[in-house]
Amino acid sequence: MTVTAAQGFLASGVAAGIKESGDPDLALVVNRGPSRAAAGVFTSNRVQAAPVRWSRRALAGGRLAAVVLNSGGANACTGRAGDRDALAMAGRTAAALGADPGEVAVCSTGLIGVPLPMDRVTAGIDAAADALSPAGGADAATAIRTTDSVRKTAAVSRSGWTVGGMAKGAGMLAPGLATMLVVLTTDADADAGLLDSALRAAVRTTFDRVDSDGCMSTNDTVLLLASGASGRVPDAGEFTDAVHTVCRDLALQLVADAEGASKEIEITVTGAASERDAVTVGRSVARNSLLKCALHGEDPNWGRVLSAIGTTDAVFDPDRLDVAINGVWVCRDGAAGEPREKAVLSGRRITVTVDLRAGDASAVVWTNDLTAAYVHENSAYSS
Amino acid sequence: MTVTAAQGFLASGVAAGIKESGDPDLALVVNRGPSRAAAGVFTSNRVQAAPVRWSRRALAGGRLAAVVLNSGGANACTGRAGDRDALAMAGRTAAALGADPGEVAVCSTGLIGVPLPMDRVTAGIDAAADALSPAGGADAATAIRTTDSVRKTAAVSRSGWTVGGMAKGAGMLAPGLATMLVVLTTDADADAGLLDSALRAAVRTTFDRVDSDGCMSTNDTVLLLASGASGRVPDAGEFTDAVHTVCRDLALQLVADAEGASKEIEITVTGAASERDAVTVGRSVARNSLLKCALHGEDPNWGRVLSAIGTTDAVFDPDRLDVAINGVWVCRDGAAGEPREKAVLSGRRITVTVDLRAGDASAVVWTNDLTAAYVHENSAYSS
Repeated sequence: MTVTAAQGFLASGVAAGIKESGDPDLALVVNRGPSRAAAGVFTSNRVQAAPVRWSRRALAGGRLAAVVLNSGGANACTGRAGDRDALAMAGRTAAALGADPGEVAVCSTGLIGVPLPMDRVTAGIDAAADALSPAGGADAATAIRTTDSVRKTAAVSRSGWTVGGMAKGAGMLAPGLATMLVVLTTDADADAGLLDSALRAAVRTTFDRVDSDGCMSTNDTVLLLASGASGRVPDAGEFTDAVHTVCRDLALQLVADAEGASKEIEITVTGAASERDAVTVGRSVARNSLLKCALHGEDPNWGRVLSAIGTTDAVFDPDRLDVAINGVWVCRDGAAGEPREKAVLSGRRITVTVDLRAGDASAVVWTNDLTAAYVHENSAYSS
Repeated sequence: MTVTAAQGFLASGVAAGIKESGDPDLALVVNRGPSRAAAGVFTSNRVQAAPVRWSRRALAGGRLAAVVLNSGGANACTGRAGDRDALAMAGRTAAALGADPGEVAVCSTGLIGVPLPMDRVTAGIDAAADALSPAGGADAATAIRTTDSVRKTAAVSRSGWTVGGMAKGAGMLAPGLATMLVVLTTDADADAGLLDSALRAAVRTTFDRVDSDGCMSTNDTVLLLASGASGRVPDAGEFTDAVHTVCRDLALQLVADAEGASKEIEITVTGAASERDAVTVGRSVARNSLLKCALHGEDPNWGRVLSAIGTTDAVFDPDRLDVAINGVWVCRDGAAGEPREKAVLSGRRITVTVDLRAGDASAVVWTNDLTAAYVHENSAYSS
């Protein structure tokens, strides 16, 4: 059910002392091959952390032998010293594994603007290399947690091969990737081209559609490594579907564990003139603080949905908008529809459906409610 | 200090019973002339309330004899019946005053999607007409309050003429006008063309730069009425400056009274390649929930400022960004600068200064912190 579900991978997670709490904070994922094909997708934030800059370069050749990840510090906005530290992490990992430093990706997460304690990181890499195991996936998934309350892992098996993965992310969940680190592995014998196309297709409709708090991170990274250890060359369609399934599973785990959230909200926009319109409207609804407060209070306040739709440039007629909350069409033709009391929002999951009545395209965006716990979690200490 | 500060205006505010609380909820502002010149700016939300649709038409001729305003119901997303109700409010007001219905603007604020209780509104208009007084400005400002904790009024006098105004707005404060109703009056003898240009110039850098919670209303309206009762034709530059001064005063009162806020945050972006870039960056910083939580917690978390800047398409080099919080340059060249402990955020007012080092343009955007009280106020009941 994690990065070691696929054959050919080792993983580990250790406490390197980067976090003051002493919790696990350093993970390794190693691809033993025979293939080293890999693909990645990174944050679209223009302020990018040093490990993101490094990993982009490492991936240019379409091959990765390992990924080293740390929590407890983002190594973002750390200047040239940050770049040197990311490179040093790749180098130390390569040395411990006998690999090429240019084939080691680096992922970091934690507070922005603070240099990593490199002596601890270096010792942690050595300890993690010693702890590598074909059963180490759970430890790795634990070590990349920051404010996550649980570890996030997933896997599916298809025609003789497996796709597995792990994720971390609980705040700064927003577009152009939710804020997170994700490592996916497969023992399918897929080349870098297929990995890249399958990963981009999956991310576009899963992680890119999670918009928990509208904040985009400097460190988002999703990597997909293939060992080829199953000896099976996958059907491209089946492989793409499997990667999508694992990404969707992990994305929904991120939404379920978002900081301070008490509701998981699925926004479906139908009847759009284009998928772009559907996503634009979905994101606008997902980011509306007043609606998120109302749903927290279990109030099916559809007027706030219409206010959010109205701020977009999507094709629609304000007098032909329909909105359902938990399946009750509380708004018809841009005005009150079924009685709002019929929409009972006491459960953890809430669906909001918007019919723009302007075409055939649709999209789903996931978000959370806005709660006092979110405010507390993000104001009580630096993160 | 309000809409009756300028000569030639009467105003009143009464409790019409639209609000269940019994608080004042209906206001009139009447221009006795000799001039009736007027201008207005409305929400850019594409979902527009019936009173906004009506008032746009009423203003087409550049003249207004009166404005009728109610709190307790937005008359938004109310279908054709809502349009009829807005027209009926103008008609009843015109009848009570002996005016042309086509010269009566209508403003409503409150819950979206619920029809107004027109019998109470009609009786309230009659009562408000009876109560009109040259000293009624404060009552009018009180009657348009929704979640506002105080009434908002302002006035300045220049070369023999005065500009006064009132505003309401505490939530849904966002771009393309903060969510609010504003009526400005002047006894200067200004024609509709000068009123329009002065109002647009003032709104662009005041109400349009308030971005408290990123939510845009369906009802935003700013009206400027001139009576000409001073007999003075104003200098265009001096008049524009006076309107700007009153708008800025009212805009800062909105920020000071925003729902649940404990901090007033002024974001100044300098060194931008264009004013548009400066505003884009300012808005992105103002809307970053994680930064707003951090400032609520009095944590000068400049990393969240950089994350927000990075999501924009403004011209900048990530390694040449400078950020000051309360005057302390905690970020230099995109990395840690002065110790963050030097930035003491215990006061109510916080300044964030971003130097993009990419040009000479600048802009100021105002926002608030994100607090548990905001969540409570917007989740505990429909609004």
